[in-house]
Amino acid sequence: MIVILKPNIAQQKQAQLIDWLKSMGLGVHISVGEFQTVLGLIGDTTKVDIDLISSLDIVEAVKRVTETFKCCNRKFHPEDTVVSVGSVKIGGGNFCMIAGPCSVESEEQIVGIAKDVKAAGANLLRGGAFKPRTSPYDFQGLREVGLELLKTARAETGLPIVTEIMSVADLELFEDIDVLQVGARNMQNFDLLKELGHTGKPILLKRGLANTLKELLMSAEYIMASGNENVILCERGIRTFGDYLRNTLDLSAVPMLHELSHLPVIVDPSHATGISRIVPPMALAAAACGCDGLIIEVHNDPPHALCDGAQSLRPEEYAALAKKVSAIREIAVC
Amino acid sequence: MIVILKPNIAQQKQAQLIDWLKSMGLGVHISVGEFQTVLGLIGDTTKVDIDLISSLDIVEAVKRVTETFKCCNRKFHPEDTVVSVGSVKIGGGNFCMIAGPCSVESEEQIVGIAKDVKAAGANLLRGGAFKPRTSPYDFQGLREVGLELLKTARAETGLPIVTEIMSVADLELFEDIDVLQVGARNMQNFDLLKELGHTGKPILLKRGLANTLKELLMSAEYIMASGNENVILCERGIRTFGDYLRNTLDLSAVPMLHELSHLPVIVDPSHATGISRIVPPMALAAAACGCDGLIIEVHNDPPHALCDGAQSLRPEEYAALAKKVSAIREIAVC
Amino acid sequence: MIVILKPNIAQQKQAQLIDWLKSMGLGVHISVGEFQTVLGLIGDTTKVDIDLISSLDIVEAVKRVTETFKCCNRKFHPEDTVVSVGSVKIGGGNFCMIAGPCSVESEEQIVGIAKDVKAAGANLLRGGAFKPRTSPYDFQGLREVGLELLKTARAETGLPIVTEIMSVADLELFEDIDVLQVGARNMQNFDLLKELGHTGKPILLKRGLANTLKELLMSAEYIMASGNENVILCERGIRTFGDYLRNTLDLSAVPMLHELSHLPVIVDPSHATGISRIVPPMALAAAACGCDGLIIEVHNDPPHALCDGAQSLRPEEYAALAKKVSAIREIAVC
Amino acid sequence: MIVILKPNIAQQKQAQLIDWLKSMGLGVHISVGEFQTVLGLIGDTTKVDIDLISSLDIVEAVKRVTETFKCCNRKFHPEDTVVSVGSVKIGGGNFCMIAGPCSVESEEQIVGIAKDVKAAGANLLRGGAFKPRTSPYDFQGLREVGLELLKTARAETGLPIVTEIMSVADLELFEDIDVLQVGARNMQNFDLLKELGHTGKPILLKRGLANTLKELLMSAEYIMASGNENVILCERGIRTFGDYLRNTLDLSAVPMLHELSHLPVIVDPSHATGISRIVPPMALAAAACGCDGLIIEVHNDPPHALCDGAQSLRPEEYAALAKKVSAIREIAVC
Repeated sequence: MIVILKPNIAQQKQAQLIDWLKSMGLGVHISVGEFQTVLGLIGDTTKVDIDLISSLDIVEAVKRVTETFKCCNRKFHPEDTVVSVGSVKIGGGNFCMIAGPCSVESEEQIVGIAKDVKAAGANLLRGGAFKPRTSPYDFQGLREVGLELLKTARAETGLPIVTEIMSVADLELFEDIDVLQVGARNMQNFDLLKELGHTGKPILLKRGLANTLKELLMSAEYIMASGNENVILCERGIRTFGDYLRNTLDLSAVPMLHELSHLPVIVDPSHATGISRIVPPMALAAAACGCDGLIIEVHNDPPHALCDGAQSLRPEEYAALAKKVSAIREIAVC
Repeated sequence: MIVILKPNIAQQKQAQLIDWLKSMGLGVHISVGEFQTVLGLIGDTTKVDIDLISSLDIVEAVKRVTETFKCCNRKFHPEDTVVSVGSVKIGGGNFCMIAGPCSVESEEQIVGIAKDVKAAGANLLRGGAFKPRTSPYDFQGLREVGLELLKTARAETGLPIVTEIMSVADLELFEDIDVLQVGARNMQNFDLLKELGHTGKPILLKRGLANTLKELLMSAEYIMASGNENVILCERGIRTFGDYLRNTLDLSAVPMLHELSHLPVIVDPSHATGISRIVPPMALAAAACGCDGLIIEVHNDPPHALCDGAQSLRPEEYAALAKKVSAIREIAVC
Repeated sequence: MIVILKPNIAQQKQAQLIDWLKSMGLGVHISVGEFQTVLGLIGDTTKVDIDLISSLDIVEAVKRVTETFKCCNRKFHPEDTVVSVGSVKIGGGNFCMIAGPCSVESEEQIVGIAKDVKAAGANLLRGGAFKPRTSPYDFQGLREVGLELLKTARAETGLPIVTEIMSVADLELFEDIDVLQVGARNMQNFDLLKELGHTGKPILLKRGLANTLKELLMSAEYIMASGNENVILCERGIRTFGDYLRNTLDLSAVPMLHELSHLPVIVDPSHATGISRIVPPMALAAAACGCDGLIIEVHNDPPHALCDGAQSLRPEEYAALAKKVSAIREIAVC
Repeated sequence: MIVILKPNIAQQKQAQLIDWLKSMGLGVHISVGEFQTVLGLIGDTTKVDIDLISSLDIVEAVKRVTETFKCCNRKFHPEDTVVSVGSVKIGGGNFCMIAGPCSVESEEQIVGIAKDVKAAGANLLRGGAFKPRTSPYDFQGLREVGLELLKTARAETGLPIVTEIMSVADLELFEDIDVLQVGARNMQNFDLLKELGHTGKPILLKRGLANTLKELLMSAEYIMASGNENVILCERGIRTFGDYLRNTLDLSAVPMLHELSHLPVIVDPSHATGISRIVPPMALAAAACGCDGLIIEVHNDPPHALCDGAQSLRPEEYAALAKKVSAIREIAVC
């Protein structure tokens, strides 16, 4: 860590600061320049409060040289991580196509869609059983029953299942689920992350609505530091001032996360845009910039037939998209 | 709920939509204008998915007429809610001054600061025992020990205590805590909110970094719908593109929340700005726009003496600020 | 325009509002529902101040049914606009590759790069002569001299030239420039837009850093309402809370703008990301989601040879990218 | 400027970088730490492109030690600037109350309001003659006629006048205007700023919707570097994800700008909130955090009588507010 001091500060204040830094067990390398003094901190700076130091009135600026994320850092682990879910592999050149309805509604619905998306090219099935809803009066999901129905759909199709877990208290119920999803709103639910770190299960970690890439990686770090390296990062749109679309899909996160980390990065264009006719172009764009998979909402239920604009694709639309995605991937990654 | 249809749509599509709306148990009042048709939905529209309807290709726009928040809505409860914490009252003209250190560190520290802030005019003591930290390698708080030390400080000073709860699993440990704080990162941890709704305890609910006022009120609604009306809302800065300061304190949230809701609204200028010398002007501004209390970081430990700029005020600074706050309140609310 | 009134308002206030609306020459169609009254405004509502009406205390909400943008609205002009620049066509299936250095520096530099990018597949040359800089102390461009050098490069290569105009006062100097660029900071410099509307020249209109799609279209409308239909829209990254990259490239703007407008939409991945190694994946993503062209920074000057990370691509990198872009376009648009 | 190099980089690349920096006329002071090398750049670094250097692949981070703003920097000019407008002084303990209608509409209107706001405590009159409007179809102001009407109102009341200039081309028309306002959308219209720098007139510079404090100061620097030191900064709300209110008033900008710069800082709560009943609490808050003045919309026209919620205050509301503002200022600044 580098601490740049302001010019012309009192010697005594500078000495006090250096003593205080040393009292935290750090080595301090002092470099006196023509205009300012720079302190290089040596030792374990992960515990140093950068905000505190930069708020000191004698300090001009502070810069971390070592990133605080370690387990997920590509610098210390140059090869891509490949997460295995049954026979499906994600990352390191392996692409996953996760599809399914927003919510599990009935056996007929989930089994039907599972068959449809499998035929259309999906290799994992998604479906919400525990649903985080902004309003307490909205449908909260079929919960345990929903999980059972997902297992039925898995038994019928062989597709591994991905579903969201919202609370440490529900962990036992998810024992037989293949991939546990942490939703955007829980990205910094640190107690949940720590517990998921103890499961060893593949975790699909969604970026929070207003979280930076560094914060996403620090949340992955919580899971990995607890011993679980099977983390899949997911970009799903961020909150901006934008009009017309629900969120702003930040696709530059894909190459940037790949540079910073060895973890696989997938993209959710359905939640990011909220409009089904915008989903295919954004799915193609995600494939073109090198993501390791796509998680897309697909439904087949008739009442929606009139909803050209809804967030979910119909199975036939998904099948057409899947073909283009794979053609684009071939060009993009070669 | 009002659904405005696009001009010149097929009669059949319109009929399909109306049938579908009726199948959800809603009455539909059709108003045909010169240029477009407007549907008025009658009945319990809280379960209607506004995003789904507005994404239909025959729909121009959808507007809720009834807000989805009810328990916290001033329309249905015009008088200010007053939350009681022991003998301290918050809201409805009663102002609270919550102060204390970011983290509980030792008995000496927390008891010392408690005495200082009480003398300086605080009527509640804050201090972090369970700390949500972006990094798993950062200090996570003294946890149970920290809670015990807070109780010691309460015993010594008589100040009720406020501290953050991060997980449903810790609920028992907080039985003897006076005010349970939900941090910004957990504002949409719905399982936690529901459980807190069953406690009956005063809850200090902080606005999430990138959450709208409506989302904050819906989170309050989760607590209240579970039966607990003792909710205190807290503005603590939002995430923007801003430079120099950690977050952007959104003070217009104070009068706006007062208009929308009967719940008390307090402000945290310490976390919002991250720089102690900016805390006093923002605390005065918060008082001037009508907030019901302030939660401010205060410390007394010598190593910080060199940190003019750190986030925490020294007790003497806090005492001076408290006097100005109360003078400004007198002018602002008269 | 639809005005939804609050429930249970005084008859007199409602009558006052209706009279006032009629005094502006509007017809008012009143629809009384079970819970609320809805007013349909008939006539030229483009001059109605929606903010004023929605701020009235008897008004619940206001919705425009007719969009305020007309000339650029796809509803009134369903076919794609094709902008012609010499023999180059942009839009309606025609893709443009605009490339060149950030700033024109010398004849040798600009002619050299022009030849390189032409060989690599570009069909228009860009280069800054008048440079908008945040600081008055930064290099402001070669100005008139820069424009002359661009013309020299055009004469040598046949590539039409694109360069930024910052002020109405400079308009004469740009008479012989092929495409006039309006930079992000000037997107709402309405006097400049109006004047450009009188030129008839192709205008490349960049989206402002924090402007919505509707605002971008309204700025295009300023140019078109003055009589110039040759407008090319450009997404170049928006300002968010993001870390690591300079801006957040909002690629979902591409399909959304195509839906709303018939104007061509191009993408600038260089300014959006600020890091050359992130430019190629974002350029591919832009092509995959259907944009009508790319504007990319390319340089060939040796001192930069050490800057792997700078914003500009080297000619050989650009050539490799151009091939992939065209392969991806073939898949995406088929 | 401090350049922190990455660990373990090739000696040759480091040497190339240093040579290149020296070729720009900079001295380079090299400090080799245990983990990384830090370069201190000596000389005129204002022309150094920080983005370019930080994008080099051998560079970890770059920090400016000297800020790029000089004329407006408090470090080089510790005393508050006082801007004089006739007999009115702004800054350095002098508070201004600028009030008037959004647009000048007629002689009767502007003279009437001018008298009203003068009686209510205003010492400057505002009114829009040239109006920047998002839509070309919206009312663009009375232009020259509006300026004449403002002068009439000044003649009748003695109040100096403040009005917006949108273009260099209009400069002559503003010769007899007291304070020239640069609107938020033109904050980075650098050609306009430069020309205003040559006028010597007081300039009210509004912060752009999505501009940082540093960018605001750099725009002030454009005016000052051209020789005009009479710059008044104005916070008027920034664009965020917020609901309910038009913009988010960033009041922490007030103390922060006062720390960074010696220029006066005023606040516009009318445009920031867009709802008249939220204007008074935000005006009080602005006064409480130390601003040097308020610019507030006031109207007296009868059709608005029904608009409790519109953005403008009525004269009697303004008079009541003015009294509270001055009481709060007395407490806040003592």
